[in-house]
Order: sequence, then C-alpha cells, then structure tokens
Amino acid sequence: MKEYMRLESDSIGTMEVPEDAYYGVQALRAKENFPITGTRLHPVFIKNLAKIKRAAAITNRKAGMLKPEIANAIESACNEVVCGMFDKEFIVDGIQGGAGTSANMNMNEVIANRAIEMLCGRKGDYTIVHPNDHVNMAQSTNDVIPTAGKLTVLDLLKPLDKSLSLLTDALYDKAAAFDHIVKIGRTQLEDAVPMRLGQTFHSYATMISRDRDRLTKVRTEMYPVNMGATAIGTAINTSPFYLDNIVPTLGKITGYPLTQADDLFDATENLDGFVRVSSCLKACAVNLSKMCNDLRILASGPKAGFGEITLPAMQNGSSIMPGKINPVIPEVVSQVAFHIIGHDTTITMAAEAGQMELNAFEPVVFYNLFDSITTLTHAVDTLTTNCILGITANEKRCRELLDASVGITTALCPYIGYKKAASLAKESLKTDIPVKTLVLKYGLLKENELDSILDPYAMTEARTRQTQAKAV
Amino acid sequence: MKEYMRLESDSIGTMEVPEDAYYGVQALRAKENFPITGTRLHPVFIKNLAKIKRAAAITNRKAGMLKPEIANAIESACNEVVCGMFDKEFIVDGIQGGAGTSANMNMNEVIANRAIEMLCGRKGDYTIVHPNDHVNMAQSTNDVIPTAGKLTVLDLLKPLDKSLSLLTDALYDKAAAFDHIVKIGRTQLEDAVPMRLGQTFHSYATMISRDRDRLTKVRTEMYPVNMGATAIGTAINTSPFYLDNIVPTLGKITGYPLTQADDLFDATENLDGFVRVSSCLKACAVNLSKMCNDLRILASGPKAGFGEITLPAMQNGSSIMPGKINPVIPEVVSQVAFHIIGHDTTITMAAEAGQMELNAFEPVVFYNLFDSITTLTHAVDTLTTNCILGITANEKRCRELLDASVGITTALCPYIGYKKAASLAKESLKTDIPVKTLVLKYGLLKENELDSILDPYAMTEARTRQTQAKAV
Amino acid sequence: MKEYMRLESDSIGTMEVPEDAYYGVQALRAKENFPITGTRLHPVFIKNLAKIKRAAAITNRKAGMLKPEIANAIESACNEVVCGMFDKEFIVDGIQGGAGTSANMNMNEVIANRAIEMLCGRKGDYTIVHPNDHVNMAQSTNDVIPTAGKLTVLDLLKPLDKSLSLLTDALYDKAAAFDHIVKIGRTQLEDAVPMRLGQTFHSYATMISRDRDRLTKVRTEMYPVNMGATAIGTAINTSPFYLDNIVPTLGKITGYPLTQADDLFDATENLDGFVRVSSCLKACAVNLSKMCNDLRILASGPKAGFGEITLPAMQNGSSIMPGKINPVIPEVVSQVAFHIIGHDTTITMAAEAGQMELNAFEPVVFYNLFDSITTLTHAVDTLTTNCILGITANEKRCRELLDASVGITTALCPYIGYKKAASLAKESLKTDIPVKTLVLKYGLLKENELDSILDPYAMTEARTRQTQAKAV
Amino acid sequence: MKEYMRLESDSIGTMEVPEDAYYGVQALRAKENFPITGTRLHPVFIKNLAKIKRAAAITNRKAGMLKPEIANAIESACNEVVCGMFDKEFIVDGIQGGAGTSANMNMNEVIANRAIEMLCGRKGDYTIVHPNDHVNMAQSTNDVIPTAGKLTVLDLLKPLDKSLSLLTDALYDKAAAFDHIVKIGRTQLEDAVPMRLGQTFHSYATMISRDRDRLTKVRTEMYPVNMGATAIGTAINTSPFYLDNIVPTLGKITGYPLTQADDLFDATENLDGFVRVSSCLKACAVNLSKMCNDLRILASGPKAGFGEITLPAMQNGSSIMPGKINPVIPEVVSQVAFHIIGHDTTITMAAEAGQMELNAFEPVVFYNLFDSITTLTHAVDTLTTNCILGITANEKRCRELLDASVGITTALCPYIGYKKAASLAKESLKTDIPVKTLVLKYGLLKENELDSILDPYAMTEARTRQTQAKAV
Repeated sequence: MKEYMRLESDSIGTMEVPEDAYYGVQALRAKENFPITGTRLHPVFIKNLAKIKRAAAITNRKAGMLKPEIANAIESACNEVVCGMFDKEFIVDGIQGGAGTSANMNMNEVIANRAIEMLCGRKGDYTIVHPNDHVNMAQSTNDVIPTAGKLTVLDLLKPLDKSLSLLTDALYDKAAAFDHIVKIGRTQLEDAVPMRLGQTFHSYATMISRDRDRLTKVRTEMYPVNMGATAIGTAINTSPFYLDNIVPTLGKITGYPLTQADDLFDATENLDGFVRVSSCLKACAVNLSKMCNDLRILASGPKAGFGEITLPAMQNGSSIMPGKINPVIPEVVSQVAFHIIGHDTTITMAAEAGQMELNAFEPVVFYNLFDSITTLTHAVDTLTTNCILGITANEKRCRELLDASVGITTALCPYIGYKKAASLAKESLKTDIPVKTLVLKYGLLKENELDSILDPYAMTEARTRQTQAKAV
Repeated sequence: MKEYMRLESDSIGTMEVPEDAYYGVQALRAKENFPITGTRLHPVFIKNLAKIKRAAAITNRKAGMLKPEIANAIESACNEVVCGMFDKEFIVDGIQGGAGTSANMNMNEVIANRAIEMLCGRKGDYTIVHPNDHVNMAQSTNDVIPTAGKLTVLDLLKPLDKSLSLLTDALYDKAAAFDHIVKIGRTQLEDAVPMRLGQTFHSYATMISRDRDRLTKVRTEMYPVNMGATAIGTAINTSPFYLDNIVPTLGKITGYPLTQADDLFDATENLDGFVRVSSCLKACAVNLSKMCNDLRILASGPKAGFGEITLPAMQNGSSIMPGKINPVIPEVVSQVAFHIIGHDTTITMAAEAGQMELNAFEPVVFYNLFDSITTLTHAVDTLTTNCILGITANEKRCRELLDASVGITTALCPYIGYKKAASLAKESLKTDIPVKTLVLKYGLLKENELDSILDPYAMTEARTRQTQAKAV
Repeated sequence: MKEYMRLESDSIGTMEVPEDAYYGVQALRAKENFPITGTRLHPVFIKNLAKIKRAAAITNRKAGMLKPEIANAIESACNEVVCGMFDKEFIVDGIQGGAGTSANMNMNEVIANRAIEMLCGRKGDYTIVHPNDHVNMAQSTNDVIPTAGKLTVLDLLKPLDKSLSLLTDALYDKAAAFDHIVKIGRTQLEDAVPMRLGQTFHSYATMISRDRDRLTKVRTEMYPVNMGATAIGTAINTSPFYLDNIVPTLGKITGYPLTQADDLFDATENLDGFVRVSSCLKACAVNLSKMCNDLRILASGPKAGFGEITLPAMQNGSSIMPGKINPVIPEVVSQVAFHIIGHDTTITMAAEAGQMELNAFEPVVFYNLFDSITTLTHAVDTLTTNCILGITANEKRCRELLDASVGITTALCPYIGYKKAASLAKESLKTDIPVKTLVLKYGLLKENELDSILDPYAMTEARTRQTQAKAV
Repeated sequence: MKEYMRLESDSIGTMEVPEDAYYGVQALRAKENFPITGTRLHPVFIKNLAKIKRAAAITNRKAGMLKPEIANAIESACNEVVCGMFDKEFIVDGIQGGAGTSANMNMNEVIANRAIEMLCGRKGDYTIVHPNDHVNMAQSTNDVIPTAGKLTVLDLLKPLDKSLSLLTDALYDKAAAFDHIVKIGRTQLEDAVPMRLGQTFHSYATMISRDRDRLTKVRTEMYPVNMGATAIGTAINTSPFYLDNIVPTLGKITGYPLTQADDLFDATENLDGFVRVSSCLKACAVNLSKMCNDLRILASGPKAGFGEITLPAMQNGSSIMPGKINPVIPEVVSQVAFHIIGHDTTITMAAEAGQMELNAFEPVVFYNLFDSITTLTHAVDTLTTNCILGITANEKRCRELLDASVGITTALCPYIGYKKAASLAKESLKTDIPVKTLVLKYGLLKENELDSILDPYAMTEARTRQTQAKAV
C-alpha cells in the first residue's frame, strides 16, 4: 500500500482511496467503471442532492432516529457542499450506469467524511458517521435521485424564464419600432399580401410568450416528488414522522411548492415528467429556430437577397471573402435547437426503456435535459443581446419590394371576383404594368375607389377598414 | 374532347374533369401532382372543413356580404358533406404540397358544385356559385386549414380519452384484485424488496391517469383558432361583422370553446400547438410502452421466465413451436408507441421548417398527427379488452420467487446496519441459507423481533408499520 | 352457428370462419386482435412470402419430406398468390403483435386452403394440406418473415433506383442548359462569390448520384437471409438437404444473389440491416429536402424574392390571392423527407428493442420501411416530372443580382490583401459605387488588370484561370 | 486602454486582446458571441485544422505564392499546434454560428502570431504574417472546416475500431467457453426451443463484427475532401499548382488516402457524408444496446430472475438494499446508445437545413458526431473490460429452466404433427408431466426413438442431425 492512501471496502472488496479525498470507495469504483463523457455531475444537481441530504438529516433527527450530534454534523457538511466547497470531490461521470447510485453514494461519502472530520474523526472511519446508515438514512437512490433531478430542472428553468422574458420584451420593442413599415408578406416564400414589419416581430413576441407560459406551467410536472419512497416506493426503513415531514422540510429548504407523490411506486419508476419538460423545451426550440430562419432570410443579401432588415454585424463573416457579414447569432440558435431536439429523442428512448420498479437510465436523461435547458438559455441570451436588440429595418427596400409585387391584387377580389383579379395579376407580372393601371385601363373600378381599396397600409388593418364591397 | 367530360380552367389552363364529378380542376391537378401515399384526406378533417365553410357562409350571409339563396345552398351542401355523402369526391392525397390549398379548393369545388345543383345549375357553371368568391368568401387556406386541423385533433382526442379512461379503470380493478399478493420488487431487473402485485398495477393506473389529464389539458392548445386571419393574418377581405362573428359561429357549430387568436399572424404561421399535442401523445406512448414491456417480462415463461402473471392467450404464438403463446397485445402497443414517437420527429421537423408568414408543411403534420391519435386509440382499446382485463396472477409463483430472494434483508438495516446486512445477504445468496436463519445463528436479533421485522407484507405498508429501531 | 360459416380451431379454441374464406382461424384472430392502422399487409410483401412458401415446397419435395402431390398443389397455390389472385384474403393489419406470426399463418392458411381445393378437398379440411405441417414445413415465422421483409425491400428499391436515375439525368440536363449563366453564389444566405447556375444543378446531380450509389450498395445488407434457421436459428425440423438448398432455390425464384447467413442466430434476432437501409433512405431524404429548399429560395418572388429561376406552375397557389403560384412540388418532397426521417426514428427504436432470440417488432419496421421507400419513389417521380424538367432560368435577374453585389471583391485579395479588399467592399456597399470604380479611384490596380481579375465568369473556372498575383 | 492589452481591429471595429494571447480579435469576438456549451473545439479537430494549414503553406510555397521564410514559420507554428502546445489558445465554443469561420480564424490567428514571433515580430503585427493573406492563403472556411471535420472523424474512428475488435474477441471467447451449455432459447420473452449459450454469444460476436465492418467501409465517405474549393467550390484565389497538389500533400501529412472531390460545389455544400457516419454509429449503438438489454435479462435475479449468467460485480448496487449488485456496465452502454441516437437526430436536422452553397450548421454536426464516436468508444471499452470478460455461466440454472420448459416439443412435429404436439405441450404445461412421458403414455412414439428426437443438444445442431421423419 502506497503512502497517502487509505483503505476502504465495500461489497466488492477493498480498495485504496487517496488519504485526503472526501469521496470514498464507491465513488472511486464508479469513476473507474464509467469513463464515458469526461464531464462530471452537474453542479446544480450536486447542490440539490446536498439539500436533500440536509432535509433528511433534519427530519430524521426530529423523528428521533438520528442522534443530534451526527445530524448536526451532516447538516453542516451539506451546507458546505451547497456552497460549492467540495465540487472537486464529485468524481462520477455525467453518464453512469446504476440509476444514480454512484452519484448518491458519492454524496453520501463526501458528507460522511466531512461530518466525520467535524466530529474529530479521521476520514474513512465510518463508525462515526456512516454513508449509508446515517447520511442515507430513510433514503434510497430510488427517491433521492429523481427528486434531485426535479429540483435541478426547476433551478435551471429560472434563468431560462428570465432570458425568455428579456427576449420577448426585445421583440415587442421591435414590433413597436417597426409598426409603421409596410412590406410584402410571403407565404411559401412567394409574394402574398401587404403587412407591416411590426406585425412580423409582434408575431414572434406572441410566439415566445407562449413558450414562456408553457415552461412556467410545465414546472408543475416537477413538484410532486417521491421522497419517502425509499426502495421502489415502499417507504421501507422510514419512520412515520419522516414519511410525513420529509417533503415539507425539503420544500422549505428549496422554496418550491413540493408535494409528496400520491403513488410512490409510480413516482419512482416513471420518468414521463422529464419527457414533458424536454418536449416543452423542444417546442420552444422549434419556435426559436423558425424565427431565426426567418431573420436570416429577411436579412439575406445585402444586395442579392431580401434585405428587408439588417442584423447587427457581430464578427467578420469569412476568412476569404472580404466585407462579408453573416447572421451568426441566428445560426447558433438554430444549431442549439437541433441539439435540443436530438436530446429529446434520447430522453424519450431512455424513459421508454424503464423496467419494472425503476428506470435505470435516469443519468442520461438528466445529462441531456440539463444541457438542453442550459444551452437554450445561453442561446436565447446571445440572441437577444447580440441580435434582436440591434436589428434595423430597411424601410426603403421594404417599400420597393412591396411596390414591385402584385400582392395588393387580393384586395380587388370582393369587387371584381377572384378570376378577373387573377388574370390582372398575371398580366401585371408579365408586362410590369401596375395592377392599378390595368384596372383603370379595363374600366373595372374608378380611380377614387381604387385609391382606397389598394392602400397597402389599410390592407394590414382589416378591423378599421371600411368595406365597400356589395353582397355577391 | 371525350364524352362525359366537362372543361374547367384555372390560372394554369384548361383541363377535362369528369362530368359527374363534384370536385373541379384544382382538386384534379392536385391529385396528379401529389401521388404520394395513396391515401386521401382524413374523413374527420373533411367534415371539419365543411363545418368551417358552413360557419363562414352563415356569417357572411348575416354580414350582408353573401346573398341568402347562395348562402343557403352552400350551407345545405356543407351539411351533406358533414354527413359523409361526398367522401369519394375528396381526391387529394394525405401528403400534399401547397400548405393545404389543394384540400381547401377540393372542398370549395365540391360545395360549389353541389350548391350549383341545388340552385338548378349545371356542375362547373361557377357563375352561379363560385368556389373562391362564394364558398371561400372571407377565408384563406391560411386560416381554414390550421383551424380544420385543430378541430380534427379535438374530435379525435375524444375517443382516445374514452379509451384511456377504460384502460385506467381496468388497471385500478386489477390493482384491487391483486392487492393481497406479495411479490419481490425489482430494480434494474435485480431482486429488490417486497411489494404487492396490486401496487404494480396501481402505479400503471396512476401513470395512465396522468397521461389522460395531460391530454385533456393539452386541448387548450387547440382552442385558439385563426379564422378571420384570411391571408397571412391580415384579415384582408373580411367584413368587420364576419371578423367578430366567425369564431363564435364556428364554436357553436362544433361545440368547442373556440377563441379567436389574439395575434392572427402568429396563429397563422406557427404550428407549435400541434407539436405540443404530438409530444403529449408521445409521453403517453412512452408510458404505455414501458407498461407493456413490464407485462411481457412479468408474464415471461411460462416456465423459464418470471411467470408472475399470465396474459390472456389471444392466438397461437408460433407457426413451428406448438403450444407457444406470446404477449402479442403488449407487443403491438409498443410498436404503436415507436410509430408515434417517429411521427413526433416528423411533426417537429415540419414545424421547425416553417418560413415567414406560413408553414407550408401543415399537411404532413396533420397526416402524422391524426394517425398518431387514431393508432394510439386503437392500441389502447385492444390493450384493455384483449389483455389487461384478462390478466391473472400466479400467486404461488410470486411467493416462491420472493422467498428465494434476499429482498427482505433491507429491513434489517435500521437494526444491524447496512454493512452487516450486506454481509448476511451475500452469505445467504452463496449458501442458500435463509437470511433469518443467519441472523439467529449470529445472535443479531431475537426470533420474535425478527418475525415482525421480516414480515414481507408489512414491508409494503410503511405507513402503518411500527418502527422499533432506535436512533443511531 | 350461422349458415355459410365453417368452424376452425387452434390452441385458443374454436371459431367461425366465413365458408368461402381462404384464410383461417389464425388470420381471423389476428384481424380481431390488431385493428390498428386499418391498412393490410403490403402487397409486395405478400408476393414475397408466397415465393418463399413456393421455394420451401420445392425444396422439401426434393428432400423427400413433402409428398409430390401436396408439394405441387402448394406450388400452384403460391403462384396464384404471387399473381395477386388472393389479395383480399390477407386480412392482417400492417402493424401486428406476434413478430409476424399472424402474417405467416395468414399465408399458410390461404395456401393450404387453395391447395386443398386443388386436391378436391373442402376448405378447412387441413387433413389434406395442413398450414403448419405442410405449407410451413421446415420454416418458422422467425425465418420467413425477416426474409420476406428483405425481399420486399429489394423489390421496392428497384423503382426507386429508376426514379433517382431519371432525376439525376434531369439535373445533369439542367446543369448543361444553365452552364453559361453567371450568378452570385451565397453562403449563409449572404452574397458570396460568383458562380454559374449550371454549377448549382451539377452539384445537385452529383449529390443525388451519390445517394443512388449508396442505395445500390446497401442492397448487400439484404442478401444474406436466414432461411433454414427455423426456430431462433437452430434449423430445427429441417432436413440437411433443405438446409443446403432452400436459399439457392429462393435465389433462383427471386433473381437475387441471396446467401444463407453464416450465423443463423444473429440473422434471426437482429434487425440492423433494416436500420441501415432506413438510414440510407434518410440520407437521400436529407439531400432531396436540401435541394428542394434551395429551389424554393431560388424561385422565391416572383418580384420580392430571389427570382433567379422559375419553377413550372402546377396549380393555383391560393384560394384568396389571385395569380399566386407556389412551389408545391418541392414542398411535398420536403414533407416526404420529414416523413421518412420520422420513420427512421421508429425503425431505430424497434430494432433496439429486440430481446433475446427474436425481435418482436419486425412488423412496425416493415410497415414504416416499405412506406419510406414507396413515398420516396413517388416524391422523386413528381419532383422530376412536375418540377425539375420544367425549370427555367431568369438570366437577366441572375446578372442584376450579381452586379449589385460585391461578390467579385474576393478576387482582389491576392493583389491588394484581405484588409484593403474588405474596406473597399464596405465602402461599395455603403455608397453603391462599384468596387471596380473604387479600385481605380484609389489607384490600387490598373484598369486592364482589373478587367481580367474581376471577370465574374473567370472566377467560376479557377482551373483555367491565369493567376497573375505574386508571392506574398 | 488597460496595460497588458493590445489593440486589434477587423471589419467590425477595434478591440482589446490580451497582450500575451496568440488568438486575435476574431476569436475573441466569437468567444463572446457564442457562450453556449462551455466546451471548446475538440482537440483532435484543432490538430487536423493545423495539419491543413501546414499542407496549404507547403503547397503555396511550392507554387511560388508564399515566400519561403513566411511559409517555414507557418509550418513550424502548425507543428507546434499539432503537438498540443497551444491548446489553451483555442477559445471558441464547440457550438458556434458562422459555419466554422470562427474556428478557422482562431487557428489562422494563433498560427500567424506564433509565426510572427518566430520571425522576431510582436504578436498582433499582422504585416509580418497575416492570418488571412498568409495563413489562410488559397483557403476558405468553406473548404478547411469540412475537411478538418472529415479528418477528425477518421482519427476518432481508429480507437473505436480497436475497441470493437477487442469486444468481438471477448465475445468469441465467451462463445467458445459456453459452447457446451444447453439452455432454453426465447422468442418474445417466451420459452422457445433449446439452444446453446455459446450460440448466444456467437451471435453477438457476429453482430458486432458486422458493425465493425460497416464502420470500416463508411470511412470511404470521408476520403473525398474539398480542399481547393475555397469559396463555395469555385477554387477562387487558388493557383493551378495548389489546386492540383493540396490534397496529395494533405494525404501525405495525414496518412489517409484522400481524394479531391470531383464536384467541389457539392462537396462544399452537402453534409450527407457525416449523416452516413452518424447512422453507422447509430446502427452499432442499436446492436450494442440490444445485446446489453439481453445481458441484463439473462443475468436478472440473482434468485427471482432468469439467472442464466452472472455479470462481474463492479460496485455496490444500492444505497439502501444491502448485497444488491446491478448490471451497471450494460446500463451505461444503453444510455450511450440513446445518446448517440439522439445525436443522429440532431445531425440529420442540421444536414437537412443547409442552404445554397454552404451548410452553416457544421459546428453542431461535428460537436455531436465527435461526441458520438468518443462516448461509443468509451462505452465499448468499459463493456469489454468490466463486463464481457468476467461473465460466468450458471450451467445448472440453464439446465433447470430448459428441463422445466416444453421447448423440446417442437422436435416432435415432424413425427406427430403440429396439432398433436400443441395439445401435448398444453397438457404438459398444465399438469407438469414431462412431454416425453405423455408421448409414451399415448403411445405416439417409442422410447428409443424419443431419446434421439428429444435430445436438446442435438436440436441445436441441425446440420449434423439425422432426420428420421418421413415425407408427409
């Protein structure tokens, strides 16, 4: 045995652990078993696991099952973990086998060893504070891991909500700023009818607002937790006091309106709540990507594209083409959207693959779900700050394209019928004679009528418009 | 020109249409342009499109924009379409280009021609009733198609709700019937702690109940419709009366609490509401497949598997192995789940690909979404009727497996500690000496204590259990 | 018992079968168990299953295991099925539980009953020809179903190959026709450097060619079949002669270079070959959709978009906007692409879910895979015929957009450096003064040098260009 | 301006860069624009980008376009980057907008600054060596980024191939070791016919071998590179010498049989080759997960499951259930499989979203694809080392389950017919009287015949078996 190592043992056998490590043999085995991604457990997940351990220690102490001096040491250790003082002691890979047992035991070991120290013991002397008997008392991986996952989702959704709120505000601001600019609307990329640029941005704002509302509502999927379930939902090895009080205690510590799931078996074995959150993120990603695709088309050019808006120039666009500026921010947002949609597939498959009383694939669900929320938040932030806020409108270009098109012809239908209007549109496109001129030429309507009927701005405000057409 | 054909023309040119056809040139062109799936528009979608046409005719009539005799003929024709009298006239493929214009025009043509007949005209004489000017008055493909899609989803969700309700009832019934049967619970397919078979089925019932609740709530995504938006959300060519009254009228006709979307541009261009419905179906599919996987494992054998339950024998299981019975119903349910999850990918991609003021890919969204709801409903029905209701429990087998396992050892932890308990479990597994015998042999606890501590049934009922363990 | 019904029995019990039905009790049970999609087994799959039955009858006869008169009757019945004479007798849903046993037994029953008739028996009198003992002799669902699936894929890939070949030809034709047209190239939707429209279409042709090659190569995944495996790969109940001759016989009947899989267990339980075919289709779908997206952008307008090409007008584009023409064919192709990508998710999940010696989810794999190939073929056909062949170029527009852009500036870099060139590009974009004028104004290069350097056509032909730049 | 900062400028403006940084203003802007994942460019990708820069410098030098002293400095700098000496200078996020321009410019800047140093200049003095004019000479992001991506895939596939080879070997070893052990085979989780445990592992070995072959073949998708394409495939700003020699030079440096793509436009704009690699990894993931699912079922128990094999115990299985050992290694492999399948969705969507002459979404394709290969390699390594090699068979349990089943009944069919055999199987299952006893009881066959017919081992070796059945 080398110097500076201590020996620890578990059901598998005995193993050397670095003398100064707070983690123990089980974390170390897990690290060796799962060298998968090179990343570690998410820091917010670690904090939440520590909060759960603290809530359990408090509740077990009050239940008379855990001696106060041990409970106090555990609680203090938990607080230190929450403060991030032991981040480097969590050595388990983000994707692990074992349904999270490795993560749970890594936490149990770190807290036990830190509590042992506080009680003047030597790290590894689990007769003082035992990872399983004391730190994990009345708990199981089966309940602490999904609960920590839910708390982490809730924590991570907060900054996303803030980011989406700022994005929505920015979009509404642009909607107001561009409200007077008339342009051609397009369906299927083809010239349609006039609209206002402000309406374009207003529709984005409405869309993102809706995503924000959904992401607020979907939090209710995370509030029912299965703490107290212990092994598979039986609540085995809990005291009645603990069973009744662990969730309220945890609710108080975390500030979330947690409830204890009515059916602890169901809450232990099924991950559909996480599928719901992932799908909700996916819908938001779909909308963001759609908007970003639009921004790239509207800003295409600068000369040989639509060019109706200009995105802020954020960086040189090419290593070879001088002066080129690209829509790099919308591009990264769409990429994050694809990333999140891929994660949703992974999460769906993992949730479906659960068997009997537990889903062994929680780690990959969490790994991808946390990444979805975080990358989405970052993407939204850069989108708002580095793109939306700086968008400018090219009013002249909007007008030119509108005038070149025959989009106003639609407004003639109530007066001259679809068929006649279609024939005028065709003739105008072919000859480049304005539709209005053709109407006058054929004597279909009078000039004063036409001015009102063919006013593009008025076409964008149907509610305030006077319809002069007669019943047909 | 052949006999029995009539000539019709559109912007593309002139074309022969069968003399007795109610559809017209535009439907016929679409049929030739899109020979993709060999299926046609969904019949429920056709009915809803006809209801929309009827609502529009009523509203336009009341607005004074549509002459009463024409409006009445259109309304009557719509009613006949709703009754299914013209199903064979809808000839457009389920997957089409054109964002639904072909479906809309197919409907406009059928109704116009039927209305023409009612007004003693000859099919194809659109001077009497015109598909665009009259039937499609104050409408656009941009509003009628997404609205018809939403109504169809709502209609199709009804039988699914009923089916899920029956499934939930069946599962609760089994939960009650099997509540007394103690068995070994399993996590990660490995023997865990005792539970009751009733708890297994109760957890399924809770899970499916939750899906049902979600599918009820997700309907609210379908209530805001964009009728009145006409082209791209501008409401162009609507009268103020129509704009205010079309949605209430349609609400009355369909019986749904429809609202007019606040932002008609957003409601016209974004399909995220359908993504939400698809995701909700997906979560349900995930849960159903997970349950069906469990059923197959629990019923595996009959001799060389788990064999804790027996599924009803529905058909011979093999063409070569005599006497083989397979879990064919759970198998088909999982397949439908995979099918729906695949559809969700398609719907997600289609929604993301929308551009500017319209999503041109609505047809493939509807095609897959309607299929998801329908196949899920059918799968749930056969699952309830042909599987769940007939499941029987093999109580003796449950007990044998429980007794063979060392699952009860967990209950010893509060008394002798995790480490000691683990060593006993290992020894018992190796030697096949029961854990209880080993506890007594080592004098760790007294027999009368043990009887209570190691009672498997009691382990499944933590709330009512007396914990005798002391604080550690 | 009703008139006109006969009684049949299986392991489950006795059941009425319509007197004139060729299918039997097992098909009927399956029909009732799986009312899922409302579709039936794919007709090409039915034909291939019949070919397999014929090959087995021949081989068993030659092996001396099947009496010649029975074998002959079976062979004749198989031929009739291949001719499509009994299509309506195959009543099993496209998505079924039971790993295809229902499909296999439906076939065994139809052939047995037809053979019985030929031998002057009465349908249902299986003492004459038995579905299992005679028709299914030396076979199992485990081998005939995956083999029939592979043969069906091979059959369906043939027309797809032809369609892709025609598409490639059409694209190469357009590449030649448009080779002289200089236009601006675009990266990230922003103006880049000059290129020729012919190069655009050439790149599409190259891309689709590659897909075609891949789809040719991937057929090798389908050639190793597991005929002879019978139950799970053991080859139980086969004679040595049969085992050696069934695959060559089937190869001769189908015309494919089939081989017998080396490891019959592997070939029976794993579906990764189908995953490979699906992925290959997916790659093709990705490419087609990318090209169709491009076509829609290039054809956008007609006035307020890129407008560099015009797609053939196939149908009216709007029910409300007169004269509107949409890119309906590219739209339907992208939808089919999304459809196929979704199917790939389904097929992947089904393949992953296989357990032990069989994958029970073959039916949903086949259902989706056959649909992928067929809809892709149809989409390619309409794309070629109704779109590519009719595309025209707007040469003037191409030149205008090119001239308006500063894309030619890149060619200055070797002479004046990236930084200087970038500053000129910026100035030109801001002032609308052509880059060339600016170069001359600043005296950076001489006019005669510039004419050569800034020739856009020359920029598209680097290989033939004389570089005059000096070493830097 | 702060001390220790230098000023750099680009088309956007002027910015402070840390004095000692080798990266420049463009990398710094990118870092600020894309704070998405918190990870950086993959180190192998960096190395390959540097190799490309080196190949370009050599070729440009030989072409007489780049002065030898500058070329030499660039080459030396490239070598240092390949050695990993500047890893911390690559500050761009793994997911970026801009199609890789940021990655390319980060490299151009680092190499320029290092070369400047070598030429006794001061970092930032790009008059000595310019990132664009010298380092990026005759290149574009459009060609170097996809090429670097392909080289990275090729590099990363090597260790995966080695890992798969070791896994295959381990599986073949187990196939040999377990070849004598007869067990019951199972289809659809139900008892089927006898097989040997060795055959199970042999089928896995065959399956993984096939994946390895595919992954070898798919490398050909990566060999055609588009170096020389520069902007969009035009080869603008390349010399004829460079155009002909860059790919051979790069081939020599990397050791791969690279070819220059025939159609440089196609090779620049389409990412389907990466889709193919991803799909190939996905097929492998599907197979690995299927095998791991099997291992978990076969090892389920230890008492209340299948228990036919025992996986090596790698870590404590539970924080609450003493003595529990879980199949943690197969579990992590399946999670990695889901992860990779999700990545395939992302990569597919990104590839489909390409527009015109470039796919802007390459970064997310690479980010996910590199992660797929790496995590798959790690998963395979731990699977081989920590699971497969240590698997032991429970021969007695295999025999017990086989004997309890009626799987041998299938072998009776050729002698007594399917129907009679089915009735015996049913009776045996109901009464627990062995099938053999029943056959004798009913006088269907003689005992000496039966011994041979019902020998389970013989049933697993059809090829060597004497069939005694007569023609029927």
